[in-house]
Amino acid sequence: MPVGLGPLPTLHPVPGFRLGIACAGIKRAGRKDVVVMEAAEGARMAGVFTRNAFCAAPVTLCKQHLPSGPRYLLVNTGNANAGTGKPGMEAALRTCEALAGLTGVEPVRVLPFSTGVIGELLPADKIIAVLPQALADLAEGNWAQAAEGIMTTDTLPKGASRQISLGGRTVTVTGISKGAGMIRPNMATMLGYVATDARVTQPVLQHMLRQAADLSFNRITIDGDTSTNDSCILIATGQAQMDEINDLTSPEYAQLARAVNEVMLELAQAIVRDGEGATKFVTVRVNGGANRDECLDVAYAVAHSPLIKTALFASDPNWGRILAAVGYAGVPDLDVERIDVYLDDVCITRNGGRAPEYTEEQGARVMAQEEITIRIELGRGNVSETIWTTDLSHEYVRINAEYRT
Amino acid sequence: MPVGLGPLPTLHPVPGFRLGIACAGIKRAGRKDVVVMEAAEGARMAGVFTRNAFCAAPVTLCKQHLPSGPRYLLVNTGNANAGTGKPGMEAALRTCEALAGLTGVEPVRVLPFSTGVIGELLPADKIIAVLPQALADLAEGNWAQAAEGIMTTDTLPKGASRQISLGGRTVTVTGISKGAGMIRPNMATMLGYVATDARVTQPVLQHMLRQAADLSFNRITIDGDTSTNDSCILIATGQAQMDEINDLTSPEYAQLARAVNEVMLELAQAIVRDGEGATKFVTVRVNGGANRDECLDVAYAVAHSPLIKTALFASDPNWGRILAAVGYAGVPDLDVERIDVYLDDVCITRNGGRAPEYTEEQGARVMAQEEITIRIELGRGNVSETIWTTDLSHEYVRINAEYRT
Repeated sequence: MPVGLGPLPTLHPVPGFRLGIACAGIKRAGRKDVVVMEAAEGARMAGVFTRNAFCAAPVTLCKQHLPSGPRYLLVNTGNANAGTGKPGMEAALRTCEALAGLTGVEPVRVLPFSTGVIGELLPADKIIAVLPQALADLAEGNWAQAAEGIMTTDTLPKGASRQISLGGRTVTVTGISKGAGMIRPNMATMLGYVATDARVTQPVLQHMLRQAADLSFNRITIDGDTSTNDSCILIATGQAQMDEINDLTSPEYAQLARAVNEVMLELAQAIVRDGEGATKFVTVRVNGGANRDECLDVAYAVAHSPLIKTALFASDPNWGRILAAVGYAGVPDLDVERIDVYLDDVCITRNGGRAPEYTEEQGARVMAQEEITIRIELGRGNVSETIWTTDLSHEYVRINAEYRT
Repeated sequence: MPVGLGPLPTLHPVPGFRLGIACAGIKRAGRKDVVVMEAAEGARMAGVFTRNAFCAAPVTLCKQHLPSGPRYLLVNTGNANAGTGKPGMEAALRTCEALAGLTGVEPVRVLPFSTGVIGELLPADKIIAVLPQALADLAEGNWAQAAEGIMTTDTLPKGASRQISLGGRTVTVTGISKGAGMIRPNMATMLGYVATDARVTQPVLQHMLRQAADLSFNRITIDGDTSTNDSCILIATGQAQMDEINDLTSPEYAQLARAVNEVMLELAQAIVRDGEGATKFVTVRVNGGANRDECLDVAYAVAHSPLIKTALFASDPNWGRILAAVGYAGVPDLDVERIDVYLDDVCITRNGGRAPEYTEEQGARVMAQEEITIRIELGRGNVSETIWTTDLSHEYVRINAEYRT
């Protein structure tokens, strides 16, 4: 059961960006598993991709094609086309060529994306066969259907949308994402697509995406497993009547970046809320660090500890496990006597030991909630970092022990 | 159910080393939970301890007392005396003082050890009350009872023993260990005690212990959680009639070190075999690395991946998850096309992709075994490293979600 994640919010159409969905029968007949997205001529795209050395064939192609001004995105679920070697590259390229042939663009202007089981060859023919159907379906109002069409073990589709006023004109930022397992993005999430009709130069768009990804998709973890297929694309169709944003210091950049950040954070958090087997949505905030790396080391040590994750599942305020994880996070010369730990507003440890006023009832009250913030005060400096994660439940084990069966 | 771990083997007594057991009722009445060990006057001791910054009060005291030529070890289970601040230090010291008073030694010649729940104050009075009982029980033949007396969530006691001939005389090396969760030692395991009657100088003994720990306790992981209490002690009573070993290059050093290594490796592997919820005993071997660190980074990425661990639980040869973990292990400039992965003797991926001759049946046959070796060939150099781990089962979640209830 996803934690605090309901039906999709309103996803405002983005002028100049259309989506079409089809059923190729990759894993099961009748399931939406192919999505084509089309950006108007002149749109800019920026992308961030997994840093996993075993990146999937489509990720390799995306990186090659991105500089060519892509117009089409082609997504399939049910098969990740990762660990498939040269035949995998050829299969991905064939799907790009097929879509390019149908739309009259060069194959390098198609970006391919795959998600699903690793190590099986992409059924390119099945995908190619339904491309006409997906193209016939293209419409600006299809965001919700596309959000559904990119799901794998997700239990709910994920989307977010904002409208802002830029120079008196309404500009839209809408995005969708998918992912529930193998989630510890190191660049981006499994798949995320965010489009806006703002006019932005490509280098500025890439900068905006990088910054937003670092504060959203790159700050979530479910199981610590960085995927082979993580990809996040930001598209600016440029259909809004406005001056092109080409300056990182302009007020328009700040306004648009804020909306993009908000959409991407909502999409990233939706992935955590729908994490495999998740029963809790956990914010881990580390304050008072000397630098960013040590804050993140502590936050991820806490977020990845199976002992803390099972205690969260059990609603057990087992703060000793939190202290232990902070202690092994590898922070140099850590003075444990300066460390305070809070569960929401409840101080559980002060100066490295149990807070004198703390009672087990207070801790139990917070841990019983579906949404919990673990806050660690390091007392070493002024840097803060926040990440989001889930608990470790029986359901997580069941899902991943049965994934291929 | 422990994997491939049966009843205790014969544990040969070590001349000059006695063990006594008592029931203090720390967690439950009638359970063996206090162990006193006594080394003959003139014995040498070496120790390695957790690198967790939040090390427990007894670990801090051990480090302070070790240079004073300890004669007594005092172990309690049921309470880790970690995260307990100054009152915890005082409680640990009081137990040392009480044992010192009863035996007529200085308190600095007592090493205290605690294991169990973190964050609760040590019930020093209960421990002190049973010290006379433990002392009355002291005997060289009590290794098996002591192995039982230091257990927490362990399902079986753990011990190993070797006898070797050094210069025509029989010398014994016997040890016990405990631990089943919060296991990713970074110096030593939760608790390990190994004694020999060999005569060895203290610096040589410390060197021998450090090397043996690095090849045994520091090469196992169950959940990646480095404990606050890891401690491993090597005692040489010097009762054997032999020249003192004071030279790291002597054949006697090599012979004794080999026996110590064997005992410690057996003890460390016993901890993995009895890992919380373990249904598999998994060896992860990385060959062909350019250096030790990258071999260990790859090995631990594989051993800590919840996705691989759940696939092991399910006996699912999901090799894509192994490739993904190798890919995110952080090895610089990893050329994935040089990487081969084996399950035991079965090559599952070659040159970064599925091996052409591999069949799912071959993988399933290996994965169905209780003991599995995952071997990764990096093709970058000549360095190899091996670690041992377990799977992630429903039982692991159940044990750790219910630990304090």
